[in-house]
Amino acid sequence: MLKIRVPATSGNLGPGFDTIGMAFELYNDISFELIPSGLNIDILGEGASEIPRRENNKVFQAAKKVFDKVNFSPSGLKIILENNIPIARGLGSSASIIVGGMVAANELSGKRLSDQEILKMAVEMEGHPDNVAPALFGGVTAAVSGISSVDYLKILPPRKLHAIVAIPDFQLSTETARQVIPTMVDRSDAVFNIGRTSLMIGALLKEDLALFGKMMEDRLHQPYRMSLIPGMREVFSLAKEAGALSVAISGAGPTLIAFVVGDGRPVAEAMSKAFTQQEISCKTLDLYPDLTGTKIISS
Amino acid sequence: MLKIRVPATSGNLGPGFDTIGMAFELYNDISFELIPSGLNIDILGEGASEIPRRENNKVFQAAKKVFDKVNFSPSGLKIILENNIPIARGLGSSASIIVGGMVAANELSGKRLSDQEILKMAVEMEGHPDNVAPALFGGVTAAVSGISSVDYLKILPPRKLHAIVAIPDFQLSTETARQVIPTMVDRSDAVFNIGRTSLMIGALLKEDLALFGKMMEDRLHQPYRMSLIPGMREVFSLAKEAGALSVAISGAGPTLIAFVVGDGRPVAEAMSKAFTQQEISCKTLDLYPDLTGTKIISS
Repeated sequence: MLKIRVPATSGNLGPGFDTIGMAFELYNDISFELIPSGLNIDILGEGASEIPRRENNKVFQAAKKVFDKVNFSPSGLKIILENNIPIARGLGSSASIIVGGMVAANELSGKRLSDQEILKMAVEMEGHPDNVAPALFGGVTAAVSGISSVDYLKILPPRKLHAIVAIPDFQLSTETARQVIPTMVDRSDAVFNIGRTSLMIGALLKEDLALFGKMMEDRLHQPYRMSLIPGMREVFSLAKEAGALSVAISGAGPTLIAFVVGDGRPVAEAMSKAFTQQEISCKTLDLYPDLTGTKIISS
Repeated sequence: MLKIRVPATSGNLGPGFDTIGMAFELYNDISFELIPSGLNIDILGEGASEIPRRENNKVFQAAKKVFDKVNFSPSGLKIILENNIPIARGLGSSASIIVGGMVAANELSGKRLSDQEILKMAVEMEGHPDNVAPALFGGVTAAVSGISSVDYLKILPPRKLHAIVAIPDFQLSTETARQVIPTMVDRSDAVFNIGRTSLMIGALLKEDLALFGKMMEDRLHQPYRMSLIPGMREVFSLAKEAGALSVAISGAGPTLIAFVVGDGRPVAEAMSKAFTQQEISCKTLDLYPDLTGTKIISS
C-alpha cells in the first residue's frame, strides 16, 4: 500500500505573512490503495471523530484534482489517514492533507506531474503558499504565487534551532482568524514587515540566530489576533523570560510557537503556565525542523 | 587633509521599499581640514552651482551632529566636496553627504563613535535606512530601524552582476516623490512585497540571479511614481527586451536602474532610446557594485 508522510508546518512565520513557513518533525501519514470499486476512508488519530469519510473528505478532493488533471479514473479507492497534526490549530493540518492527497494521487496515476505542478495546484486549493511549500519541500520556505507559477526558496535552518509549540485546547478556523485582520494596512506597518522579513531570511541563511529571533516581530496579523487567543501576551512574555529567541503565532493560531536553542523545557513550562493562568489548558511539543518535506515511506 | 570616499546608492531596491539598498562604484569625495577659524566650503562637480556654502550646507550639518555628540568644537573648518553623484536623481547623493560628513567629523574628533552609532545618527537625519546603510557598508544591505538601534545585514552581490542606470535630465525631490504614494496600502500589496523581498534577499545570498531579477517587482511605490517619470513604462519594457534581468526605480527616482550580467550596452541603448522617444534626454552609466562602502582615502 502506498504511504505518504507529510510534515506539520508553521505558516505566517514572524513577519512573513502568507509567505514564510517552516516544516517540523510531526507528521500525518496518508495511505492510498486502488480497490475494485467505491470510496473507503479510514481515519485514525487527530480529528477521527470530526473529519468526513465521503467524497467531501479533503484528502479525496485533493487527490481528485490530480486524477482529473491527468485523466486518471481509479475504479475504487481506499484511503487511510493516520493524523498526528492537530486540526485547526495553526500547524498546517489542511496543507498536509492537500499535499499528501495530491502526492499520493500523482504516484498512483503514474507520476505525471512535477513537484512544481503539485505545488501550484496545492497553493490554488489552500489559497496561500506559506504552509504548502514547506509541507512539500521541508525546511523553511519563502514562497510567492505569480500568475503562471509559484516561486519559492528553501532554506535549511541550523540543526540546533528547534521550537516549542504550545497548542491550546480550542480550535480557531483560518476563516475566523482572517476576518479580524484589516484589508488595508498602514504603509509603515507594511515596511515594518518587509524589512524584518528580509532580515529574518538573511539571518537564517547566515545562521545568525540572535538576529533571526530579533526579526520575528509582526504588525500585519498578530496584533489583531491577540483578541482571539486569550493569554497570548502572557505566553509571549513568559516564553521570552524563559530564554526563547522569539515567539510568534503559528499560522493563524491559536498555537503559539517559541524558537529555542538548547534545553526547551523551561520555555515549554513557561508557555504552559501562562495559558493555565488564563484557565486555558494546553499541550506543548518540542519540535525540530523537518528538512526533507513530503516523502514516500512505502510504495 | 582628511579625505573620505562615499559610494552612490540605489535605495527602495525592487520590492524592498525603505529597506533594501545597493552601493555602486560612483563616489563623492569629502575632505575636511581644521583651520584657525571660520567655515570654508568648496564644491566641485555635481551641484556646484546650487549647493549652499554656509552653515546650512548638509555635509556641515551632518558633521555638526557628530561634533555636538562628542563635545568637540573645531576652531574652524575647511570642507571640499568633489561630487560625482547627481543630485535629487535617486542615487543617494543625500545619504552620501550625510554619511561622509559624519564619518569625516568622527575621524577629526578622535573616532569616538562606532559604525553602529554613525549608522543610527545618519538614519535619523536621512529618515530611512535604505541608502545610508549601503553608503556606509557597501554591497547590498537590508536594514530596519528599531527603537534603540538600526539592524542591518550586508550581502556581497555576485561580482558579475552590474547595473545600467539611466539618469533623466530632470530632478525629482524625495519629498515630491513621497507625496504621490498612499499612506494606506492593500494588505495583498503588502504581502506581494513581503514575499518578493524575502525571495530577492534569499536569491542574492544563493547567487540565483534569475530569481533575483524575477523578484524585483513592487506594488508599494513604483505604480504611483510612474506619473512623475515620463517614459518609465517604455524604459522598463525596452530594457527587458534588450536582456536586462530586471528594471526598477532607483530610490525615489527619476533614475531607472536595470540589472544585467554580461555586456550592458544593448540595455543602456534601449533605456536611452525609450527616454528619447518621450523627448527626455538622459545619461546612462554602467555601474558595478561597491563592496566596501565608505572609506578613508587620505588622512
